[in-house]
Amino acid sequence: MTEVVIGIDIGGTFTKFGIVDKNGNCLAENFTSTDKFIDFEVYLEHLHTEIEELLNTITTEIKIKGIGIGAPNGNYYHGTIEHAPNLNWKGIVPFIENFKPYFPGIPMVLTNDANAAAIGEMIYGGAKDIKDFIVITLGTGLGSGIVVNGELVYGHDGFAGELGHINVKHRGRKCGCGKSGCLETYVSATGIKRTVFKLLAERVDKTELRDISYNDLTAKMVSEAAKKGDKIALEAFEITGRILGVKLADAVACTSPKAIFVFGGLAKAGDLIFNPTQKYMEENLFPIYRGKVKLLPSQLQETNAAVLGASALAWKELEK
Amino acid sequence: MTEVVIGIDIGGTFTKFGIVDKNGNCLAENFTSTDKFIDFEVYLEHLHTEIEELLNTITTEIKIKGIGIGAPNGNYYHGTIEHAPNLNWKGIVPFIENFKPYFPGIPMVLTNDANAAAIGEMIYGGAKDIKDFIVITLGTGLGSGIVVNGELVYGHDGFAGELGHINVKHRGRKCGCGKSGCLETYVSATGIKRTVFKLLAERVDKTELRDISYNDLTAKMVSEAAKKGDKIALEAFEITGRILGVKLADAVACTSPKAIFVFGGLAKAGDLIFNPTQKYMEENLFPIYRGKVKLLPSQLQETNAAVLGASALAWKELEK
Repeated sequence: MTEVVIGIDIGGTFTKFGIVDKNGNCLAENFTSTDKFIDFEVYLEHLHTEIEELLNTITTEIKIKGIGIGAPNGNYYHGTIEHAPNLNWKGIVPFIENFKPYFPGIPMVLTNDANAAAIGEMIYGGAKDIKDFIVITLGTGLGSGIVVNGELVYGHDGFAGELGHINVKHRGRKCGCGKSGCLETYVSATGIKRTVFKLLAERVDKTELRDISYNDLTAKMVSEAAKKGDKIALEAFEITGRILGVKLADAVACTSPKAIFVFGGLAKAGDLIFNPTQKYMEENLFPIYRGKVKLLPSQLQETNAAVLGASALAWKELEK
Repeated sequence: MTEVVIGIDIGGTFTKFGIVDKNGNCLAENFTSTDKFIDFEVYLEHLHTEIEELLNTITTEIKIKGIGIGAPNGNYYHGTIEHAPNLNWKGIVPFIENFKPYFPGIPMVLTNDANAAAIGEMIYGGAKDIKDFIVITLGTGLGSGIVVNGELVYGHDGFAGELGHINVKHRGRKCGCGKSGCLETYVSATGIKRTVFKLLAERVDKTELRDISYNDLTAKMVSEAAKKGDKIALEAFEITGRILGVKLADAVACTSPKAIFVFGGLAKAGDLIFNPTQKYMEENLFPIYRGKVKLLPSQLQETNAAVLGASALAWKELEK
């Protein structure tokens, strides 16, 4: 009999879920819609049905030990999703309280998606032997999970690790959170797009990016243009890396991690983003930290990394 | 028989030491010079003699359980003082290795002075029931100690919690650490002095501060002028509080503390520093944290707070 956990990653558009053993092997996985469900109870019922169907596809004998959930604005202490701007369900959503009856007797734990990614990195990824590290997830926004002495930092309220909302610039770019000048408005797939559009306004360089609308432009297009030597795209990466590097230097001054793992779409740009980030981080580090902090791409498999993170959360919780 | 520890606080000018029981009662204390000793070995021998003399003044029966030391750039893991700019002893000084033979069999532990202050706040001060908090020490520079889930954050190298050196401004004020634009060049007793001098250059307001040289000006004078309504002094506090407030908001996004304690000379300015710091911190917080974080003056007794901090470190270590 194989012991497994169910990992669930709730995104704004899709919910992914998988059945994962202790070694990080995903026995089965699937996904369903998140945003089509206006009613939270209907969503939970549907999600339960989908998971049961997935479990039925597994032919070996399994024992479900726990369920781990990664969700935007997930609160570890209360099992709630609180004021998530990208979800239909507003206010404080009692996720675990309402989902637990579908899986009687099975331990269930929830945290935010970037925290789950950090635990994934610790259990299955590049941080297996590292006790102090930070994971930065670069997607539509910027998420972070901070690990100190082998434990995820949740803070007094369960919401620690929101580096996407540290302050880059007074009266800077408007952020979805209501503030201005937050890090994720500069450093994320959306952030680099905004930077490209600022540069298109300021410069006169010829670039194929001038033919693409804001809504059509993706971080991948910026990355492809940069690889072909496009000046605007190259400068957008330089600016993005500079801002991220300085802020990572500040984060190092808080918890002094041994490594920082960068995860998500923008991280796939490789040297384009890693080189300037590393350079400006080193320059802006308090001298005592210089040359000590590794900046690395996440070593989780991209295809099911979010599900692996949520599963790792469940395994980690079972150790306690 | 009373169980006690010896608390030692090594400052740039003086070394303070005391004999402290588990309730934070200081049975005896004294101080000696730090900066008069060019030779580290001679300093240790002298410090040992002074401590033995202090112990001889105690008439009740005591048992020394441990020794705690707070020192600038103190490394908890190695018991070393590393590259401390304000001490005569350069490079990496093996403090515990060389001091231990003077007190055979007695556990000895060392950390940086702000970390010791944080442990003091936890054991004897306002953080007795708080598991997640930050202590900011405002003296000549800005030090910090970060506590997560009841444990001090040391980081992978023992040097976590250097908020004095996070980056405020690109190409900003020169810092003693070699960088430019570090937080402590704006927010500290020295920082507010530099701000006053910048304002004296930029403004034409009449102020008694124009009669005082840079070397003569103290943060206390700025505070006294502000209390009398001096415009330049008031604005200097507003600017200092704004910069500190924004950076505390960023620190909250890392570890989500329940409280931030401010300690040291500049904190004595009371509302002058606390009001703008609180205001700008709240404004710049990620909304999910707003209204949750208490900004408080340290509740350690000022007279022997540093010695209490070092003692608390020793007691905390003995619990392990």
